[in-house]
Amino acid sequence: MSTDHEPSPMLNFYYAPRCCALASHIVLEEVGASYQRTRLDFTKNEQRSMAYLAINPKARVPALVTSHGVLTETPAILAYLAQTFPAANLAPLDDPWAFAQVQSFNAYLCATVHVAEAHWQRGNRWVDPDDAHAIAALKKKVPTSVFDAFELVERNLTGPWVMGERFTICDPYLFTLAQWMEFYQVNVAGLPRVIAHRARVAARPATQRAIAEELGRAA
Amino acid sequence: MSTDHEPSPMLNFYYAPRCCALASHIVLEEVGASYQRTRLDFTKNEQRSMAYLAINPKARVPALVTSHGVLTETPAILAYLAQTFPAANLAPLDDPWAFAQVQSFNAYLCATVHVAEAHWQRGNRWVDPDDAHAIAALKKKVPTSVFDAFELVERNLTGPWVMGERFTICDPYLFTLAQWMEFYQVNVAGLPRVIAHRARVAARPATQRAIAEELGRAA
Repeated sequence: MSTDHEPSPMLNFYYAPRCCALASHIVLEEVGASYQRTRLDFTKNEQRSMAYLAINPKARVPALVTSHGVLTETPAILAYLAQTFPAANLAPLDDPWAFAQVQSFNAYLCATVHVAEAHWQRGNRWVDPDDAHAIAALKKKVPTSVFDAFELVERNLTGPWVMGERFTICDPYLFTLAQWMEFYQVNVAGLPRVIAHRARVAARPATQRAIAEELGRAA
Repeated sequence: MSTDHEPSPMLNFYYAPRCCALASHIVLEEVGASYQRTRLDFTKNEQRSMAYLAINPKARVPALVTSHGVLTETPAILAYLAQTFPAANLAPLDDPWAFAQVQSFNAYLCATVHVAEAHWQRGNRWVDPDDAHAIAALKKKVPTSVFDAFELVERNLTGPWVMGERFTICDPYLFTLAQWMEFYQVNVAGLPRVIAHRARVAARPATQRAIAEELGRAA
């Protein structure tokens, strides 16, 4: 694990490049948080090191270490950042119904969209990794199951942002999962609004800073 | 679909018996909401009827119809009920860190525990349903993947309730998913705290009312 040395001791963000942690990474940039970053190298299996398991026994990223303790799970981290940096205005905190819609969208991304995608490379979570037929069968369905999951998003994506005129924590999360569609051989021609939304989020400075850092370049 | 005729026109809860909708059903009872219930018969594929797809295009339950619109996804429904019935005190609404822990727990149940369980009967979501080998391979791993998912809960379940001394929206959700462990051939002997927690939630009047209604008996 390699930690940078930015000034704040209050938040330490554990992530790996090119995974769902990017959503939280973008939101940390959007809210203007002062935070440290600790990058895990999945190719060295650092997520299973004793040091990291003491932080997150799930052996996954992201994890956000705060002065209160450790927070895991993307929807929880995103809502927490929106709540603790209210000036960034990234969630409708004073409107339970609107907040519930944000929560619903992010739960769908977490439990349906991301799960569908994970069957491409993480089939070993759900079948014996030595069962080559089953691993291949899971991978085979990903283009259609992921398309179907995004198609529901497509139908409702009528504004510039997921929640309409207002940019929220839903947007970086959708962007993050939508980045990988071509890799999963999803027919993106059938998802023009998701693609246009992806381009809008990609153009934001916070997104560009997070991605630049993850790819190891100077931000 | 069959709707009962309780007095409130404000909330209509769409559910099916013996599925994850029970968590929301219990919380509706816990908060003392006045609500209608509409039961879907999955054996008649009512979740795919045009009438229901107009309410929830995901073709799943639960869905909570409110005066504002439709809310789906269990974690979102649970947090919304906690927010809109604050007197029931089912979530630490004034403490962003404690609320984030509730959110994290429910996201884990939704995206890891429930997803692991779903590979037993809903393998067609992730592989070709005609691929008998793959369907069997998914089912084969469920006892261990679900055990492993609950084992993480077990380690942290040191109080009477998920969040310690305080009963929250996490508890009915954990109870609901833990109900099915024996069906999935999970080694429950290795999960004594989860089993004891399950018994505590089962003993609550709200749980008993929701289950009695789902099983079609008078509450």
